[in-house]
This record gives sequence, C-alpha cells and structure tokens, in this order.
Amino acid sequence: MTDFPKTPLNHVRRIAERGQYDTATIYPIIDEAKICHVGFSIDGQPYVIPTIHAREGDTLYLHGAKASRLLKHIEEGHPVCITITLLDGLVLARSVFHSSMNYRSAMIFGCGMVVEDEQAKLRALEVLTNHLAAGRWDDARKPTPKELNATTVVAISIESASAKIRVGPPSDDEEDYALPIWAGVLPLRQQALDLIPDPKLNDGIPVPEYLANK
Amino acid sequence: MTDFPKTPLNHVRRIAERGQYDTATIYPIIDEAKICHVGFSIDGQPYVIPTIHAREGDTLYLHGAKASRLLKHIEEGHPVCITITLLDGLVLARSVFHSSMNYRSAMIFGCGMVVEDEQAKLRALEVLTNHLAAGRWDDARKPTPKELNATTVVAISIESASAKIRVGPPSDDEEDYALPIWAGVLPLRQQALDLIPDPKLNDGIPVPEYLANK
Repeated sequence: MTDFPKTPLNHVRRIAERGQYDTATIYPIIDEAKICHVGFSIDGQPYVIPTIHAREGDTLYLHGAKASRLLKHIEEGHPVCITITLLDGLVLARSVFHSSMNYRSAMIFGCGMVVEDEQAKLRALEVLTNHLAAGRWDDARKPTPKELNATTVVAISIESASAKIRVGPPSDDEEDYALPIWAGVLPLRQQALDLIPDPKLNDGIPVPEYLANK
Repeated sequence: MTDFPKTPLNHVRRIAERGQYDTATIYPIIDEAKICHVGFSIDGQPYVIPTIHAREGDTLYLHGAKASRLLKHIEEGHPVCITITLLDGLVLARSVFHSSMNYRSAMIFGCGMVVEDEQAKLRALEVLTNHLAAGRWDDARKPTPKELNATTVVAISIESASAKIRVGPPSDDEEDYALPIWAGVLPLRQQALDLIPDPKLNDGIPVPEYLANK
C-alpha cells in the first residue's frame, strides 16, 4: 500500500475526513468503474469528456481516434484531472441539509505520453479491452496495422491522487431524530441485464464464459 | 424544442453523427442522471468534481458548503463545463477496434451566479432535493436560516450544450461478420436495491410512497 503525499493538488478540502490517499483505496475505485471523466482546459475554457480507461500499475491508459482533441492536448504535455465516481446510494436524512449520497470517487492528476512502441500500444489496448470485459482480448479480432495507426493511446502516470468516500446511514442533528420523517438509504448499483446478441450474429456461436456470468 | 447553435464550444467533433443539439434530447439526459461532473480550471490546472445537480428550465443548480472552492470559483464568474453521462451498455464488436459503449452524455457550458435571494434559494434547494427523490422536499425538515447561510447555491444558465449518444448493436467491418466471434451488447442499468432504514429510525414511521416504488 502506497500513500500519495497530501498536497494542494489532491487534498480533499470539503469534509476532509472523507478523504483518503492510499492506492489500496484509490485503485479499486478506478478498476471497478467502466468510465472516467477527463478534465482539461484550453485557453481557460474547461472541458470534461467521458471515456473508457484502464489501469496497469501506476499508469492509466486512455485511447481514441488519432484526431481526438483531448488526446492531442495530452500529447502536448498539458496536465489533466481524471475523476471516477461510483454512486452507491441516495442518503435520505430527516433534514434537507444533511441529505446526501453514498459514493466512492477518485481524482487522479498527471500528465500523459503517447504510447508509440507497437508492442506497448498493443499491450495497452489489451488492458483497455479487458477492462471492458475481462477475457475479451483473447477472443476478439486484434487490431490491424492500419487500425493501430488510426488509434492514439496515451499513458498517464498517476502522479497524485485522492479518494473521497461516503458510506452508511444518514447523520442527522440530534434533535431531528425525534421527527416523524422516514430516513435511510436507497442503495444504487450498476447492474448488467441480459445480453443482447448482435442481430447479425451467425448461428452456432456460443456466448463466451467471461460474458455469461455478468 | 430548442436547438443550441453549433459553435466551436459545443460542437461534437469525434464521430460527429452522434452529436445532437436540441433541448428535447439534452434535457432528459440531465434530468435522469443523479450526478454530474463539473470541470473548472485554476491557473491552468483542471479539476473535475462530481456533485448533485438539478435543472429548472434553462438553469442548472449546484449547491454546497459556503467554503467550497468550486462554488467560489463559479461565483467569480469563471466558465465551467458540466458533463453528465449515462452508461447504457458495453458494445462487444468482433474486432477490438469497433468495440465501444452505448451511452447518452450531455456537455453543458455556462457561467454561474450565486442565488442570494432567500425565496429563490429555497426554491433551488427544493428542486435539488426533489432531484434526489421526487417528493422528498415536502416530507423533509426544511433548512433553518443558519443552514441556509452555510449553503451556497449557484444557478448556471445553460448557454451552450450538446449531447452525444450511441445506441444499438456493434458495427463491424463487413469482412468480420463471418468470424466465429460472439458479438452483441451487454446492457447496463443503474438499479435501486431495497431501502435500508436508518438504524436510528423510530418505530411506526412508514416508508413514503415516493420511495416505495423505486
């Protein structure tokens, strides 16, 4: 377990006791989420773009089309902030003021580099593909040289990060517990529904095991 | 139905045919999501913060503690980008290259103003509380003057926005349809689980109807 130093960059300011700085807390949040939100700024105008990500060690991979403005911006060496949020529930306190949400979020700061080496690029795409569905890489048709060339992969070194987490029941003011108001948590979860086969799927192709148990 | 003008700010560049610019498409995405990701930039360093939001007309409300850095930054008149993403499924194409996700995302640009007027502030908190759970405001204990004073509400006028949407099955290259690889969509949905009453809930307080059917 590694701790990121608490700096002005990653310091959780609001409700500081919800802040955590160790990889053992932060990395599972990154790994559980299917998408992240990448923030970058061009001439003072912020942009936030949702995209798939995948982590390997202390590196976060993003990918996209070669022409992507975000990836070009990262390629130029600008810093990004990547935020990942898992919403776990609605916290219904007796008071409006203490109403909240249960969540696990991670905020990651770093700069990125384009992955140029072909083997490293294929490895990054393997990690990204298996983040979509573990086991998919071995099964799917691999990228051709032309496809590889049309794809940019960036590796972001996780230089600083923090997590912010809220769990558990509402926390009301002492005098409010006597009020005749229902209070509790409505848990939320991202759930997989039944697989929808491609209408163009050929007959006799079984659902692979790594998808069957989703 | 209103269209936002397509400008360099909100123009969907990558896979432009997935871009949409009308409120009839954008606003339901905003309303369905429980959280948004707010991007802002201080001295060239981007930050992305997840928070609850709620829309009323062409206004998006955010709120938080008076000391919040984000809200202070908005109060100073800086532009923000607010991105909202609903993940609808994993798109498992035969090729790695065409693998994707089904999603509905909205990107909103604007500047904010602090809501100072007490009645307007209470109205904004009502909209935010009912976005958490429709009907909750009437039921919950309303903010005291002290709580109101400790809370900052900002109203962001939606000046520009766009949506980006992907639906449907994978779209593979023609020659790949013959491959013996399973392809299709794994649909994902945010699901509410059984309510967890506050362990400190007094006896005899029924679950309100607006929560019972979640």
